[in-house]
Amino acid sequence: MQTPWDYRYAQRTQRMSSSAIRELLKFTELPDVISFAGGMPAPEVFPVKEFKEACIRVLDTMASTALQYGTTEGYLPLREMIARHSARYGIAISPDNILITSGSQQALDLLGKIFINRGDRILVESPTYLGALQAWNAYGAEYIAVPSDENGIRTEALEEALRAGPKFIYILPNFQNPTGVTIPLERRYRLVELADRYGVPIIEDDPYGQLRFEGEHLPSVVELDGRIRTNHDACYRGNVIYLSTFSKILAPGIRLAWVIAPPEVIRKLVQAKQGADLHTSTFNQIVAYEVGRGGFLDRHVKIIRDTYRERRDAMLESLEEHMPPGVRWTRPLGGLFLWVTLPEHLDATKILEKAIEQKVAFVPGVSFHPKGDGKNTMRLNFSYQNPETINEGISRLSRVLRQELDLNG
Amino acid sequence: MQTPWDYRYAQRTQRMSSSAIRELLKFTELPDVISFAGGMPAPEVFPVKEFKEACIRVLDTMASTALQYGTTEGYLPLREMIARHSARYGIAISPDNILITSGSQQALDLLGKIFINRGDRILVESPTYLGALQAWNAYGAEYIAVPSDENGIRTEALEEALRAGPKFIYILPNFQNPTGVTIPLERRYRLVELADRYGVPIIEDDPYGQLRFEGEHLPSVVELDGRIRTNHDACYRGNVIYLSTFSKILAPGIRLAWVIAPPEVIRKLVQAKQGADLHTSTFNQIVAYEVGRGGFLDRHVKIIRDTYRERRDAMLESLEEHMPPGVRWTRPLGGLFLWVTLPEHLDATKILEKAIEQKVAFVPGVSFHPKGDGKNTMRLNFSYQNPETINEGISRLSRVLRQELDLNG
Repeated sequence: MQTPWDYRYAQRTQRMSSSAIRELLKFTELPDVISFAGGMPAPEVFPVKEFKEACIRVLDTMASTALQYGTTEGYLPLREMIARHSARYGIAISPDNILITSGSQQALDLLGKIFINRGDRILVESPTYLGALQAWNAYGAEYIAVPSDENGIRTEALEEALRAGPKFIYILPNFQNPTGVTIPLERRYRLVELADRYGVPIIEDDPYGQLRFEGEHLPSVVELDGRIRTNHDACYRGNVIYLSTFSKILAPGIRLAWVIAPPEVIRKLVQAKQGADLHTSTFNQIVAYEVGRGGFLDRHVKIIRDTYRERRDAMLESLEEHMPPGVRWTRPLGGLFLWVTLPEHLDATKILEKAIEQKVAFVPGVSFHPKGDGKNTMRLNFSYQNPETINEGISRLSRVLRQELDLNG
Repeated sequence: MQTPWDYRYAQRTQRMSSSAIRELLKFTELPDVISFAGGMPAPEVFPVKEFKEACIRVLDTMASTALQYGTTEGYLPLREMIARHSARYGIAISPDNILITSGSQQALDLLGKIFINRGDRILVESPTYLGALQAWNAYGAEYIAVPSDENGIRTEALEEALRAGPKFIYILPNFQNPTGVTIPLERRYRLVELADRYGVPIIEDDPYGQLRFEGEHLPSVVELDGRIRTNHDACYRGNVIYLSTFSKILAPGIRLAWVIAPPEVIRKLVQAKQGADLHTSTFNQIVAYEVGRGGFLDRHVKIIRDTYRERRDAMLESLEEHMPPGVRWTRPLGGLFLWVTLPEHLDATKILEKAIEQKVAFVPGVSFHPKGDGKNTMRLNFSYQNPETINEGISRLSRVLRQELDLNG
């Protein structure tokens, strides 16, 4: 259908093009395809009973608030709960430092909206979270990509990147999406020191921090930044904007996340959010607060950790058993994803087409590289499928890879 | 707190400044202030019982879908319901023409994002909906303001405005926010004809179309555009993008609205929405579908109409009784708002300060004028307060105005 809208798109709309990979991924939704492509939590761990009780309680006792318009900043008791939770993890803040967003994707979009001029360069790990690139491409962001290894961003390459004058650093320190890799403590310190020295602020994206299966909790980048001048009590200095979400610890279908930032940045984000969607669903905020309060979240994340640990182990064992030689993968300590590196001559996007024929799917790693490298890599999700299905899916994927290696070897 | 973010804001952030009026309006939330400033539905008409039943049903039977990530386009049964509803009102479309958004504010934001380059001119009624200006200012929109009267946009001024080359026309034909005015059929025809002749597309914003208290339903602009070539069956030609919302017919706290547009525009909006918030709450979409299906919405809007008609009547009677001579107001046939015009020498923003002292509040009309005129106007909401409170509030406001007129007269 030809319409007068056709030639009226803004310039930025050209930068939003849907990728060929997204088109391919549509096939992964066919019922008999085992898809490791998504990033979905296991529905088995949704706290359905608690949601139901909370919905009933909220509609019985405060429907006229819960169904009404609310403030852009977000429901105060929920922000207070987040402030208390943050304090336990060494981030000393008040509700004035918190904005509730419609998922972390909205936090990324609003941050892009208030900070990014066309041509601004953002320092990112390579690979990095695709959703951030999608949000910021629309504002004309360019990227300084710092390579990462099995310990995350390579801090020895940071200083040169910082000298190129990035507007900010974007980093996912825990069980990164897409690689599953965690940045160790020494690199976190180094990152904070260098950012401070060059006066470059940081956006820390931490959707999975609570989902650690093994090892010790590491202090967040925002916490370390608070300690940089003193060696004991952490304060919030405001150099680091911190993002997290209820999507992975409660449920993504309610679209609830939060931003921690200096009050002045929160005020700008609030103005941007007023124009973007007025506020996040009052009903969902109050229900989430009712589900989460009284220590439920702490108890619930243990169940999620146990479930995902079992699935990660199933995937690692299955990879070990089935994969042909020359294929490597990460061993995440938490989160939802692991990262597979194929022999260099293989192209994961081409392999995806064949994999879909064999009823198994993944996301080619090139999508997560702002400069388009990483052609021989892929992201696998282990949170969504049960262990048996994971084993069957990895076995199918291994067959496809063996065939490719036979053909190309 | 000084932080490295302070000097890193994007240029567009300067265009998002919070207004002095918004600061004043914070005082309207004090408990003893009778506020006509908001745009809130009456909580008495929220279908709480139906929401509760729907939440229970959804969580009992399809929690693993309702709490999970969903598609960006929106929940298919909800889009099908909207398509059927639209067909009854002469808009022949399929679910491919529909995107579910997180409130109409998001629809305005995404449309701005995909269409508006800095400096683009949008043809608007003056006054017009503040939320559209807020959304589009961030993208650097400029405005061609066409004056309106008690029959809405003055179509005799349209042709000159169209010659100035607007990117699109933005119009609210039914019980407009802020004026409460409805565009009669002849002007709607004229608008559609002129837009067609000049090849300028239209965004029709219709949040209140279902809330008519008296008189006949008028065909929407999108319906008339469909009839422009034939004189009988309407088709959807795609020249008009149509917005509506569940905020005023169900509840605003669930943040659910929709856009009707050509499939190609929907595809671009979907790309923009992927970057903006991935998708609208699956849970809220499914619950709203469960509440709304089976004809409930048709029955429910009758209750809302009756309630708001009574409140409009209370406000009109009270204005008649209390207001000093020289003050005029509109007589809306539906919706949530009416518009007061004071004698020309009065400034409604200054009067707001005194009104707040007297515990009554409104929104100064200047906020709704893209060019900053209309200083002697104000918007009053009649949907939120009950008739007794409306009478008391109008009585207070009248006292403030009488004092002003005595002082300035």
